[in-house]
Amino acid sequence: MLNAPLPLGATIGMLGDGQLGRMLSLAASRLGFKTAVFGPEDGAPAAQVSASAIVASYDDEDALRRFAASCDVITLEFENIPAATLEFLTGLGKVVAPGAHALRITQDRVLEKTFAREQGVATVDFRAVDTLDDLKAALAALGTPSLLKTRRDGYDGKGQVWIRDASEAEAAFNAVGGKPSILEAKASFTREISVVAARGWNGEMRAFPIGENHHVNGILSTTLAPAPVSDDVTKAAHDIARRVLQGLDYIGVLAVELFVLDGDVLVLNEIAPRVHNSGHWTQEGCVCDQFEQHIRAVTGWPLGDPSARCTVEMTNLLGDDILDWPRLAAEPQAQLHVYGKAEPRPGRKMGHINRIKS
Amino acid sequence: MLNAPLPLGATIGMLGDGQLGRMLSLAASRLGFKTAVFGPEDGAPAAQVSASAIVASYDDEDALRRFAASCDVITLEFENIPAATLEFLTGLGKVVAPGAHALRITQDRVLEKTFAREQGVATVDFRAVDTLDDLKAALAALGTPSLLKTRRDGYDGKGQVWIRDASEAEAAFNAVGGKPSILEAKASFTREISVVAARGWNGEMRAFPIGENHHVNGILSTTLAPAPVSDDVTKAAHDIARRVLQGLDYIGVLAVELFVLDGDVLVLNEIAPRVHNSGHWTQEGCVCDQFEQHIRAVTGWPLGDPSARCTVEMTNLLGDDILDWPRLAAEPQAQLHVYGKAEPRPGRKMGHINRIKS
Repeated sequence: MLNAPLPLGATIGMLGDGQLGRMLSLAASRLGFKTAVFGPEDGAPAAQVSASAIVASYDDEDALRRFAASCDVITLEFENIPAATLEFLTGLGKVVAPGAHALRITQDRVLEKTFAREQGVATVDFRAVDTLDDLKAALAALGTPSLLKTRRDGYDGKGQVWIRDASEAEAAFNAVGGKPSILEAKASFTREISVVAARGWNGEMRAFPIGENHHVNGILSTTLAPAPVSDDVTKAAHDIARRVLQGLDYIGVLAVELFVLDGDVLVLNEIAPRVHNSGHWTQEGCVCDQFEQHIRAVTGWPLGDPSARCTVEMTNLLGDDILDWPRLAAEPQAQLHVYGKAEPRPGRKMGHINRIKS
Repeated sequence: MLNAPLPLGATIGMLGDGQLGRMLSLAASRLGFKTAVFGPEDGAPAAQVSASAIVASYDDEDALRRFAASCDVITLEFENIPAATLEFLTGLGKVVAPGAHALRITQDRVLEKTFAREQGVATVDFRAVDTLDDLKAALAALGTPSLLKTRRDGYDGKGQVWIRDASEAEAAFNAVGGKPSILEAKASFTREISVVAARGWNGEMRAFPIGENHHVNGILSTTLAPAPVSDDVTKAAHDIARRVLQGLDYIGVLAVELFVLDGDVLVLNEIAPRVHNSGHWTQEGCVCDQFEQHIRAVTGWPLGDPSARCTVEMTNLLGDDILDWPRLAAEPQAQLHVYGKAEPRPGRKMGHINRIKS
């Protein structure tokens, strides 16, 4: 718990060193804060723009102690930071936001969906799967096609496999490494949307306009925002975000991915306890973007104005897409964002472009 | 001369470590560049957000050699970098933009105004003053009130004194330390405006909309942009910027401060060979702000779209103004920018706020 807003020039500790940490650092700098990055990779995207960086693994207690000593508050850019790391830092007397409780729930797809339902938020139908027998029973209950995902550590379509027929059960269970998993019924959705929202230490909440997402091969390709959805859908999505934020006693920005079913019924797909790719449009679309909003929330500053200035189409630049930068950089009314990663490996998120549509 | 655009991930060297360097570094990061800062102060605003920083004086050749070795191109955020420093770096085979020639002219108010006139750009009437006798002769020629300024090193109203009567000559000359100076006739202007414009390695030029400036005690207080001036004034101001950019064979962003006299006649007041306080409005006002435009120009990237998205009023936060951040940060449709300076000394530029007006 932060008792007062952090003063000008305070240092924000960042667990994780990727592009989200980079853009959080840039936003923190705009408000006059320093950032200290903790992550496994030397010269990582976030470290390039931060006042200090410690390169170490998340279970290196000596390194965590040094890191903690330099920080006035600690946050994260990556949801798979071990909950034990957060607890260790909290045990050192540091304020960590979001906290270990929120991470423990959102790191596990079964706990996450169970939590959502407890908050009165609909999800797709699902079953926990620990064994092949569990999977067979789950397939009998949910039918096919259905989606098998590891409970933990999956993102961008990794650690998941579609099952078209019950006979594929064993192959599918092997494909996810026989790990504790979740089977999800297929949602017949008409749109995928997401809502990015923030909650501060005083309980105040602010939500950005809705983004409509298009995925290709399980990876986000584009977000259009504010999405062309009805006011009722916006209201319902914002209500879901509020239930999730309050239920987790969450501090900072999170994203809730939702499926829009026929009749504009919303079901929760996933919670990301951090700034989110589907919120990148806010950099050009809002006065206060999702990165600054997160910094404001965790430092106890007043939350920023999340209203949209314009419609933006965000397109991810994956792998070699980034090599097209000379053409992308020449587009009028568009902002290119490049993450500073050394190699454009296939499917790797190298940057994005925000195109102002109106 | 840069023969090809700098590739992704290249390192931009920055001479100077203040807030302009900080905002240039943030813009460079957005495009995936790394920045290396060279300046005199430990933990300075720009160093806090850069991949590397060397703390040394501008005549430390060993430090300059180490700096140069890490840079793919070198630029500056401060016009009083010694021209000798730029020549030393150029002698090491480094590309420096803008170059020593542009700095040598704009560092000296007499050379600057003489250059402007050679380009067909009107200035206020002026005389070079090396001695008290020179000053007396200049006062006889230009009359009073007139403004005595040191030829070099003055900024934000420092190193200048108004002379109301010829009898004040000696006191005024003492007030500027008896240094080589310039006497300028008083301009009866109706507005002070500025134009911020860029020129790339291929000679391409782009100018931002005009800003209207209000100074208090010789320091910029607010800029309103795009300014409510006629199309003819905009055209004339852009034409002046182009003459200056071409005449200096300039690479990067510069600012030209102009007085608007009766009948919309423009006269040049000053050239700043760098991004400029009166261009800060572009951060919220344009898709590509002045900082990114400068980075694009010096790296050989395509110049960005300088068109305005909205009207912005930029207000400087001097000294203790910054202590009002809790109220400023809570304003809707406004972006606070804080520079990361430790102490709010009187008159010190601590940050600014861009308020979106329409």
